[in-house]
Amino acid sequence: MAPVKNGRVVFGDYVQDVPKPGQTTIYDSTQTIDLEAIALNGGILIKTLVVAVDPYLLARFRNSNIPGWSLNKDDLVSYLGVGVVLRSEDPAAKPGDHLYGLMPFQEYTVLPGIGELRVLKNEEKLPWSVYVGIAGMPGQTAWVGWKEYAAPQKGDVVFVSSGAGPVGNMAIQLAKHAGCKVIASAGSDEKVRELRDTVGADVAFNYKTTSVWDVLAKEGPINIYWDNVGAESLDAALQHAATGARFIECGMISQLSGAPYTMKNLFMIVRQEIKLFGFITTTLMPKYLADFYKEVPGQIARGELKYVEDRKHGLELAGEAIRDVWLGQNRGKSVVIVGEE
Amino acid sequence: MAPVKNGRVVFGDYVQDVPKPGQTTIYDSTQTIDLEAIALNGGILIKTLVVAVDPYLLARFRNSNIPGWSLNKDDLVSYLGVGVVLRSEDPAAKPGDHLYGLMPFQEYTVLPGIGELRVLKNEEKLPWSVYVGIAGMPGQTAWVGWKEYAAPQKGDVVFVSSGAGPVGNMAIQLAKHAGCKVIASAGSDEKVRELRDTVGADVAFNYKTTSVWDVLAKEGPINIYWDNVGAESLDAALQHAATGARFIECGMISQLSGAPYTMKNLFMIVRQEIKLFGFITTTLMPKYLADFYKEVPGQIARGELKYVEDRKHGLELAGEAIRDVWLGQNRGKSVVIVGEE
Repeated sequence: MAPVKNGRVVFGDYVQDVPKPGQTTIYDSTQTIDLEAIALNGGILIKTLVVAVDPYLLARFRNSNIPGWSLNKDDLVSYLGVGVVLRSEDPAAKPGDHLYGLMPFQEYTVLPGIGELRVLKNEEKLPWSVYVGIAGMPGQTAWVGWKEYAAPQKGDVVFVSSGAGPVGNMAIQLAKHAGCKVIASAGSDEKVRELRDTVGADVAFNYKTTSVWDVLAKEGPINIYWDNVGAESLDAALQHAATGARFIECGMISQLSGAPYTMKNLFMIVRQEIKLFGFITTTLMPKYLADFYKEVPGQIARGELKYVEDRKHGLELAGEAIRDVWLGQNRGKSVVIVGEE
Repeated sequence: MAPVKNGRVVFGDYVQDVPKPGQTTIYDSTQTIDLEAIALNGGILIKTLVVAVDPYLLARFRNSNIPGWSLNKDDLVSYLGVGVVLRSEDPAAKPGDHLYGLMPFQEYTVLPGIGELRVLKNEEKLPWSVYVGIAGMPGQTAWVGWKEYAAPQKGDVVFVSSGAGPVGNMAIQLAKHAGCKVIASAGSDEKVRELRDTVGADVAFNYKTTSVWDVLAKEGPINIYWDNVGAESLDAALQHAATGARFIECGMISQLSGAPYTMKNLFMIVRQEIKLFGFITTTLMPKYLADFYKEVPGQIARGELKYVEDRKHGLELAGEAIRDVWLGQNRGKSVVIVGEE
């Protein structure tokens, strides 16, 4: 069989202001691959089906200091995705298997073996993109953090900041399933509508146009805060926390990238006997992952868990997806559909 | 019997800069009382033996907004103390009983009954002052917070800020008993010496002359932080926290009274998977108080728990005690010996 085009996305340069497609990342269609002839040397040949774009990927383009996470010019970009095995010399995978994990932004790739990629069963026949969102790392993040630390009581008031991403989507729905009232914030009116209409938040607001202090004063006090952002949202949540509130500290994006913020309400931690739980998903995964894959795909298939996706079709649009997420212009989980089966 | 002098301390005026004896509080020796004739009306007559002075009492003089904790001019000052019952018409107490709780800064007082005062057994014949310090509320604060949240492992590194007070003293010794290495801070070189020589901290430093950042960089990372102060100490502790560290948030004095401080390391809560536990002693007391009184006085009597006391003799020195604590010039737990038996 003749070689076929093997489109890919490589790193260009660190972001100065806003990511620019063709500069921050470059779509390169000059490579080809002979899918039948290429040597595997004990490895596997995969076809990438979908890759995810989210803030953690963006950190690669920000010259952040996350060890092992930086890129050099012309490096192939990779992030969470799903691929299908075309050929395999690794006994752990056979042609037709679907693999989830760190996936190259490239149509076809030879890997030395399945390594830490996970074989997905997908008995529910969900779209593969779901496995990088609500049924992947982001959904798992919300799921394990919630199970470990939320201790929800029926009627508890829960605040989820940055509710429009897949982590927030899952946290909101776990809270609703537990009989809680959910307040959620997002960065655009469209996202706010989705939080209310699709995801099921009781109260949703645009933090860019509505004061988080006012919303929590009216709808609080809160018993559980799912914190994706830190800074002012965290400060307002402290101000309006009920006695014994649990704060699940999932992310502090504002703290890392924004201007320094002076917290006014840290003393409320003591006064209101608040517990804050910082956590990293991978630490809690061994305890919960089997249950997650047992429960979550079925709940999605039955419509008990909703999700919102922003799909781009084709790797040549990865740069646009990256820019949109950076600007908060994506609507739902940003995924790039790389190939079809 | 003829009436006797009944010295007392009343509130004068809110502190402007530093408490002034005779102005912030006033010692008044004009009152008398007839100990045999005064009517009890079903209550009790007590003689105050000792009262405590600590930062929570100082809040009364600061025009703080703690509900029920403000004073008006000429109000009798009261705070934790121990008194002995001289006469009683309350079946819950008999003459000779010693009572612990909120006690007037007054030599003799008729109370409507023992109310929430606790009868102390003191089978170990400890000085009564101990029961307002390491065997009283402050010691209980450290004890219940530690038992509930510290989860110490042998070899853990523990940092106790404001180690020289009775809360800090107890926290340090609980950590040492658990086989931990203890770093403690205090506000004077004398206090630092006591922390090292009497209380048993492995590393003690004067936070006014030595950088907390440097000490923790050298002696950390820390697994447990007993936080009595918040602000910069908390920020430094976050910077030097080990993965999975527990932060027991007991007080945020700096946060309440100092200049606003901009935390630089809140994102470490997530990155290092830190848990912060805000707590109020009284909430945890029902769970632990019986054990506390069963264990702690005996440990003190056997010399297994050390304490440092700064004693003033006579209510006329209460104003000085208040000023000293405000300025951090007390050495050890500040107590005022009001009377002898």
